[in-house]
Amino acid sequence: MGLQVVRFKKDNQEQWGVVSGDTILVLQNVYRSLAEFLEVGTEEARRIKEEGSATAVLFADVELLSPVTKPARFICQGTNYASHRAEAGLEANRPPFNLFFSKADSTLCGANSEIIRPNHVKLLDYEIELGLIIGKDITGPVEVTDNNLHQYIAGLVMVDDVSARDVQFTEGQWLKGKSYRTFAPAGPILYLLDPDEVAKIHNLELNLWVNDELRQSANSSQLLFKPTETLTELSEMMDLSKGDLIITGTTGGVALNLSPEVNEQLANSSLSAQQKLEILLASQANNERYLKDGDIIRCQIKSPDGSIDLGEQKNKVVTGSKKPVSL
Amino acid sequence: MGLQVVRFKKDNQEQWGVVSGDTILVLQNVYRSLAEFLEVGTEEARRIKEEGSATAVLFADVELLSPVTKPARFICQGTNYASHRAEAGLEANRPPFNLFFSKADSTLCGANSEIIRPNHVKLLDYEIELGLIIGKDITGPVEVTDNNLHQYIAGLVMVDDVSARDVQFTEGQWLKGKSYRTFAPAGPILYLLDPDEVAKIHNLELNLWVNDELRQSANSSQLLFKPTETLTELSEMMDLSKGDLIITGTTGGVALNLSPEVNEQLANSSLSAQQKLEILLASQANNERYLKDGDIIRCQIKSPDGSIDLGEQKNKVVTGSKKPVSL
Repeated sequence: MGLQVVRFKKDNQEQWGVVSGDTILVLQNVYRSLAEFLEVGTEEARRIKEEGSATAVLFADVELLSPVTKPARFICQGTNYASHRAEAGLEANRPPFNLFFSKADSTLCGANSEIIRPNHVKLLDYEIELGLIIGKDITGPVEVTDNNLHQYIAGLVMVDDVSARDVQFTEGQWLKGKSYRTFAPAGPILYLLDPDEVAKIHNLELNLWVNDELRQSANSSQLLFKPTETLTELSEMMDLSKGDLIITGTTGGVALNLSPEVNEQLANSSLSAQQKLEILLASQANNERYLKDGDIIRCQIKSPDGSIDLGEQKNKVVTGSKKPVSL
Repeated sequence: MGLQVVRFKKDNQEQWGVVSGDTILVLQNVYRSLAEFLEVGTEEARRIKEEGSATAVLFADVELLSPVTKPARFICQGTNYASHRAEAGLEANRPPFNLFFSKADSTLCGANSEIIRPNHVKLLDYEIELGLIIGKDITGPVEVTDNNLHQYIAGLVMVDDVSARDVQFTEGQWLKGKSYRTFAPAGPILYLLDPDEVAKIHNLELNLWVNDELRQSANSSQLLFKPTETLTELSEMMDLSKGDLIITGTTGGVALNLSPEVNEQLANSSLSAQQKLEILLASQANNERYLKDGDIIRCQIKSPDGSIDLGEQKNKVVTGSKKPVSL
C-alpha cells in the first residue's frame, strides 16, 4: 500500500510526516524540498509508518503546507474533460492536441489556506484537478507506458486550479489569470504510489463543493489525454525534474459557463480587451456560481475503495488586500 | 562601468569568467547556478577584472553556455513592440494590458548552440529579445521605479525566443510552441549593470540577421511596457527569485506575417486545429522568411555608445532528430 505524506508547520518549523489514522507521525529529518524528500526521505517515512513509534501530532494542531515545494515547474493541461470542454463553449470531443499552459509556483499554498481574490478580479473560479508528482528527472524523450509509469510518477496530490476568468479570457494567454498568489491550494496529502497501485490513477473520484453544494464530480477515467501520453509528449518537448507538478485538467461544474457564440467573441482578435470584458461580464451576469468573499471551497479526491485518499481541502475566499504578503 | 560575465565549458568543466578584450578571465571559484554567482561571485568577478591577473582563455577555445542556469522562472512579454504587433495582425498601439506567458527553462542553450527544429515543425521563427535578470527576490508587491530598478535587475542578457508558429497559433496557448529544447539561445554575455547605467536599458540597439540579411532592427526605447511597470505588475502577482529571467518581447521583422483577417480566423474557436493549421500554412505559403535547416541566425544587442554590449549569438538551424538529447 502507498504512503500518505504531509508537509506542515508546527511551532514555526516546517516538517514532514506520515499519516496514521487521525494523527501525523513526524519525521525526524528535515527535508528542504519535495525533491530532497523524494530522494532521501521516503525510506524514513516508510520505516516510521511501519514501526508506528514516532512522535505523533494531531492534524488540528498543525498548519498544513503544500507538499509541492518551490521552486517547481508547474505544468497544466487545459480542457481535458469533455464536460468541462462543453461548458467552456468548446467541442466536447477529445481535441487533436494536448493543451498545455503553466501556473506560477508561487500560487502554491496549503490545503486550508485562504484564497486571496485580488481586488480587481470579478470572476473568481475553482477547478479541482488531479496532480501528478514527477518522480524521476526527464531530460529527453521517453516512451511512458502503463508498465513504466510508476518510474516517472512518484505520487499524487490534489490541486485547486483557482482562475480569474475575467483576466484569463480578456488577455488570451492564461498564465496571468491563473497565477496570483494562493491560486493553487495543494494537498493536504502527497500520496506515494506503490508500483502496483499505478493503475488506480485511472479510477479516482474527484468532488468539489462550494458552501456544501456539490459543484464538480467526476472520475479520472474521464481524462481525455491520459498521464502516459501526457508525460511522453512533455518529455519530447521539455525537461522535468523530481518534485515538479503536472495537473491534469478539471471537469465540468466550474462557475464559468460560455456558449460557443460567446467563446467565439472572446477569441475574436478584432475586439479590444475592454469589449471582451464587457461581453464576458454580460454573459456571466446572472451566474451566481462565481466565488464570493467568505465562500468555503471543499475538495476531495479518492479511489472508490478508499485505498487511495488525497485528503480534504477547505479554503475560504477572502478579500484581497492591496499588498498581499507572499505565502 | 558594468561587467561582462560569461559562463562556459572547457575541458568538460563549467566555469564563469569576465570578458577582457578578446579573452575571458577565468574565475577560480565554481558557481553552480546564476543565483549563486550573483550572491557570492560578483565580487570575485570585479576583483579579477580590476587586477587582470587571472588565467585567460580565448573565446574560440570554449563552449559558451547560457548564463541563465536551470531551474529558473522564464517569463515572457508578448507583443510588446508596435512593429511586431502590426505584423502579427494586431492593433499596433499599446494594448490595455501587459501580456505574459512562459517558456520552459530547458529551452535555454548557449549563444552558439544549434537550434533543433522538431521534425513536425514547419514554421520555425526567430525573435530577438532583451532579457532582464532578476537581482533580488520578490515575494510581494513592490513599486519598481527608475530610481530603484537597479535593485531588482542585476543585469541584461540577449535571448532569441525561437517559436514554432504552427504549434503556437493552432493550439492557442503559447507554452508548447515556444518550449522545445534549444528554443532559447541565451547570452553570450551577462551584462552586470552598474546602478548608474540602468537608464541605458531604454536605449539599446537590437539587430538580428538570417544568413547575413538584416531582419530585425529596433531600439529598446520602443518597448510598449517598460521594465519598471512590468516588474511592478509581476510583483503584484507572483514571486520571482534572484537569477530568474524576463524577456521583454520582440520587434518587427520576424518571419510571421499575419493579416488581421487571418489572425481573426486563427483565434476563431469554432474552427478546428486542423482548419487553423491549413489557414495558417496557406497564408504563409509564399513566405520565404521562415527558418530552414542550415540557416544561420546572428543577433546583437548593444548601446549606441558601445558601453553596454551583450555580445553576438550565432546559431545554426538543424534537422530535429527523433530523439534529441537534452542540453
